[in-house]
This record gives sequence, C-alpha cells and structure tokens, in this order.
Amino acid sequence: MIARRPRERGVTIEDVARAAGVSRQTISNALNAPHRLKAETLERVSAVIEELGYRPDQSARSLKSGTRRIIAYPTPVDDPANPNPLMGGFLEAVVAASGEAGYRILLVRPRPGQSQEQALDELIAARTVDGFLLSDILRDDSRVAHLTSTGFPFAAFGRTLPDQPQSWVDVDSVQAVIDLVGLLAARGHRRVAFLASTSGQPWMDDRRDGFLAGVRRHGLAGQVYSVPGDDPGEIVTATRDLLAGRNRPTAIVAGGDWLALGVYTAARAHGLEIGKDLAVAAFDDLPITAFLQPALTTVRLPLRRIAEALISRLLQIIEDGVTPQAGLMLPGELVIRPSLGP
Amino acid sequence: MIARRPRERGVTIEDVARAAGVSRQTISNALNAPHRLKAETLERVSAVIEELGYRPDQSARSLKSGTRRIIAYPTPVDDPANPNPLMGGFLEAVVAASGEAGYRILLVRPRPGQSQEQALDELIAARTVDGFLLSDILRDDSRVAHLTSTGFPFAAFGRTLPDQPQSWVDVDSVQAVIDLVGLLAARGHRRVAFLASTSGQPWMDDRRDGFLAGVRRHGLAGQVYSVPGDDPGEIVTATRDLLAGRNRPTAIVAGGDWLALGVYTAARAHGLEIGKDLAVAAFDDLPITAFLQPALTTVRLPLRRIAEALISRLLQIIEDGVTPQAGLMLPGELVIRPSLGP
Repeated sequence: MIARRPRERGVTIEDVARAAGVSRQTISNALNAPHRLKAETLERVSAVIEELGYRPDQSARSLKSGTRRIIAYPTPVDDPANPNPLMGGFLEAVVAASGEAGYRILLVRPRPGQSQEQALDELIAARTVDGFLLSDILRDDSRVAHLTSTGFPFAAFGRTLPDQPQSWVDVDSVQAVIDLVGLLAARGHRRVAFLASTSGQPWMDDRRDGFLAGVRRHGLAGQVYSVPGDDPGEIVTATRDLLAGRNRPTAIVAGGDWLALGVYTAARAHGLEIGKDLAVAAFDDLPITAFLQPALTTVRLPLRRIAEALISRLLQIIEDGVTPQAGLMLPGELVIRPSLGP
Repeated sequence: MIARRPRERGVTIEDVARAAGVSRQTISNALNAPHRLKAETLERVSAVIEELGYRPDQSARSLKSGTRRIIAYPTPVDDPANPNPLMGGFLEAVVAASGEAGYRILLVRPRPGQSQEQALDELIAARTVDGFLLSDILRDDSRVAHLTSTGFPFAAFGRTLPDQPQSWVDVDSVQAVIDLVGLLAARGHRRVAFLASTSGQPWMDDRRDGFLAGVRRHGLAGQVYSVPGDDPGEIVTATRDLLAGRNRPTAIVAGGDWLALGVYTAARAHGLEIGKDLAVAAFDDLPITAFLQPALTTVRLPLRRIAEALISRLLQIIEDGVTPQAGLMLPGELVIRPSLGP
C-alpha cells in the first residue's frame, strides 16, 4: 500500500483576492465572467492571477478534506453497437480534466423504476459524490430544477434558466450556423435549406435559428425541412423530397452530421454531385465526416475546453463555495472540407 | 428526499445449491464453466436454476449491505476528437449491465505521477469501490498481477494467466479470423495477406495467429505484413508496398478496421477496386465500416454479452465470494459486406 504523498498547498482564490484587494467573487468573475468587470479591474486582477500563478482547475487547487473527490455524471443512454462519438469524446475530456484536479467521474443512471430526480437524491443522501455534471440540458430540465432546489453543486453542459445557477458552459451554435450561411452566401448560393430533426432538442433549435438569422442577414431564400426522429430512411426520404421540388436549393445545412449522411445518400439518388451540384454543411464533426466522399464541412465542438471549463466551474462551487455569476459561451470551430464546393 | 424502497429478497445461489443438492461452486460452474460439469449434473442444476428463477446478474441478486455498489473501471486514455467507438460501446454496455444489478461505474485513471498499481491501491485503501473491471489486458498485465496479489475482486475483458483468477471474458479472435480466411478460400483466393500493427497487443497477435492457422488449413499462400504504430500514412505506405510486389495478394485481412481504412486508400492509389480486384476483411466492426464504399466485411464483438458476463462474474466474486474456475470465451460475429467480393 502506498503512502499518499503530501500535496503542496497551492495558491488559493483567497490569496489572489487579498493580493488584488478585491472579493473572491471578483476573482471568480475575472475567470468565468470577465465581461462583468470594468476593464481596469479585470486588468489588475488578471495581473495578480498571473503573478501568483493561481490555477483554479489544476491539482494545485486546494483539496478540502472530507470531500470524496467524486463527480457524478448522469450518462445519456446510448447504443453499444453505434455509440455517439460526441459523447465518448466529451467523457474522455471530462475524465482528463477532472483527473488533473484529483477528481473521478461516477457514471450514474436511474435504477429501473427510478426517476432522474430520485437517482440524484439517492446519491446526495448517501454522500457518495461532491457534485454533479449534467449534459444534454433540455429547456425545462427537471434535473437542473431539482439540483437548484436542493442547492447541491452542479455544472451543466447546456444553458440553465435565468433564475437557476449560471454554472453552465455551452457552444454558440447560433453564431456558428450564421457563419456557415455566410460562407455559402459568399460562394454565390441564393437558395439554401436547413434540415432539422423535430426532436425538440434546444441545440437543434439554436442551429435552426442560426440558419434563419444567416438567411435574413444575407438576403437569401431559405427553407427549413424537418425530419421526424433519427431514422436514416426518413432522413433520406425527406431530403429526396427537398431535392425533387421546383427551385431546389443549391446548398443544404444539416442540423447534425447524422442528418448529413442522409443528404449524401439522397443526393446520389438524384445524380447530384456533392461539392459541385449541391453544397452540404452540417454540425458536430463526428469522426466519420472526414471519411465521407467528399469530406463534410461541419462545426466542431471544442470538447476539451468545454470539459475544462465545466470542471473548473464545478470545483469552484464545491471547493470555494463560489457559484459563477454568468454562463460561459464558447465558439464552435468551422471545419471547411470539400462538401462546401469551391 | 426519497425513501429507498425495500428490495425483494431474490433467489440466492445458496437456495439453488440447496435445492439441487450440490455446492455453490457447482452452481457457479453451471453458469460460468458448464464444460466442467458432467452432462447429467449440468442438466439437473440447470433445471433447478430455471425452476427457482435464479438470475445471478439481475437486480433480484441479493445486495449485501455494506458494499458501496461501485465498480472501478480504469479507462484507457483516448482522443476526445476521435474517440475509440469500441470503447464507447463497451462502456455503454457495462453501465447498462452494472446498472441492472444496482451497481455504478467509477472511471479511474492514475493521478499524475501515480502508477496504475498505486491508483488501484488508493481506491482499495479508501474503500471507495467493491471491485475492479479491467479491459485491454496485456500478456503480463501488471494490474492483474497486482489485484491477484491483493486478493481484491476483479473481472477482466481479456485473458489472465493460468495462475491468476480466471474471472475473464474474451472474444475468440483466432477462430473468427480462421473463419474469415475460410470464406476467402471458398471464394477462390489463393494468395492472401494479413496486415498487422506491431503494437504487441495480445488481441492483434491472436488475429495474426488465426490468419496463419486459416492459411495452413486451406493450403493458401499467406504473408504477414506489419505496420509500426497506428499512423494512417504508414498504414497506406505499408499497404502500397504490399500491393506493388510481384504476386500481389488478391485478398487482405486487416488486423483491425483502422488498418483497413489505409488499405482502401492504398488500393485506390493502385487503381484496384475493392470487392472486385481486391477482397478486404478486417476486425472490430467500428460504426464507420458500414459507410465505407464498398462497406467492409469485419468481425463484430458481442459487447453486450461481454459486459453482462463480466459484471455477472465480478458480482459473483463480490457478493458470493465465488471466483469462476474458468474463463469465458465468446465467439465474434462475422459481418459479411461487399468488400469481400461476390
């Protein structure tokens, strides 16, 4: 059995606050909601953070005794034969970021017959975990509402409501799709379409809103096509329908890479060459998109940055008792590949 | 806060042993190593198991108080931008199987500077977990050796050594590749090649051994080509080399789907049409293989069955104190797609 090595006492948020002559909350804002601070305050605080080498999300962070150093992550149900690579990538990034801070991830799922809330309560009551990491946040997320009411620490990949803790991190999907539409407009496209799934997921709505905003901004003719569910056959049928109409679009933005796979199949069936007769762009940058022919233009989620920010925010609540005053919106990364055309 | 509902007391292994007039070990053997029992014993015990409805891996299983109901899974390091889908699928299957039995999965990775063994010891000392689930077992796996010496419960996806607990589950890669070579021989191929990575992974060696055994059995001319590492460029170069030689093979078996991607690129560069000029088969059934053109013939791992067997075996050790007397070898599933040719 090994002896645990003593940890160096790192620079704490209190040290930084004292040295800068401001409150802990101001230090937290400088790190998590810089727009809340006056420029001169931000500059001064940043200089002190730099000078003292304060790293809130590293293992130098003070580790309060008594914490279990376990973060619960309620995992979405997946298909073992075709797992969501985005989820796998997110989990890897979360394990790495929490590991650096000395925390481990407990995968939790309601027991048979248990609601999500009951599963959360069971973990809180058993004092198994220090906090929760949530993903796939819905508009009216019952898990967020429940953890808000219990006051238990959590961070969320996806926005919470204004009256809930703003411990969220999200990707600016609206802006990313506006940018995609801008690229299409610059390439001369005038008739464009958006292919959405009607699942009611907030991120899909954001992508559609970005499409509509981009269409307005560039004065394009834009239509939105919705596919019920995720079934590949239905995606192909909907796209064939879209391509068969008069005034067919010269470019399609799919709300997700999965939908774009159906666009490829449908375009082939219509004898349209993607990247030449039809421009296609999508969202998520699943690993498969680079192998499509032609490779797919898409939007990559900065999973490492998302995971690091989530863990940093969650540990700030757990260890320092400081809840971020504002959410953190990160930009998506456009990955331009031949499907967009010349 | 919810009240925990009382659990029904399920049928225990003792109930079954008493009713069948045999030892607990015999019941364990019937479930995990049936070949160890005489046919009439197996028949009698199976009838009692059926009659009493004994389900060792379900939530009816007796849950000893005092266990944390947490299983630690040391996760291999992955790439968030391109996560191993096999690992994602395995993890999903493990979460589902352990969840049904009332257990949760804790993802563990050594802290910076910590060895795998130190990470295991820390969890054992802190009494955080009831047992370990290991994957990616190497020939001389130090984690297996360490857990064997501590006597702490574990189950392994991948074979352990004969003097170690036989709580492993594995896929019969050798037989699966023998079967693949048989399919190629039946299609008239006489010159075949195996593309391996030289990573020293036991599963890669098994696949190569299966190839060599298949070649011998069917009297084919076979050669083994090794690629250093996983670099796509090196895979393509090695395959181009293989295809440029005199007497080039008419069929290539790749040791993994990842290697087969390089074969596709190299074949295209040589003007060879896969499924017509060159047959290709591989291993793993990554989700991407169905999207290749032509779709790839490959071997699927039965991830759900593997996960269920692993959790069942681990919980038998944790809850019943019974270590399986023999490993469990499951067959891979051949998935025949057009890359194999007509």
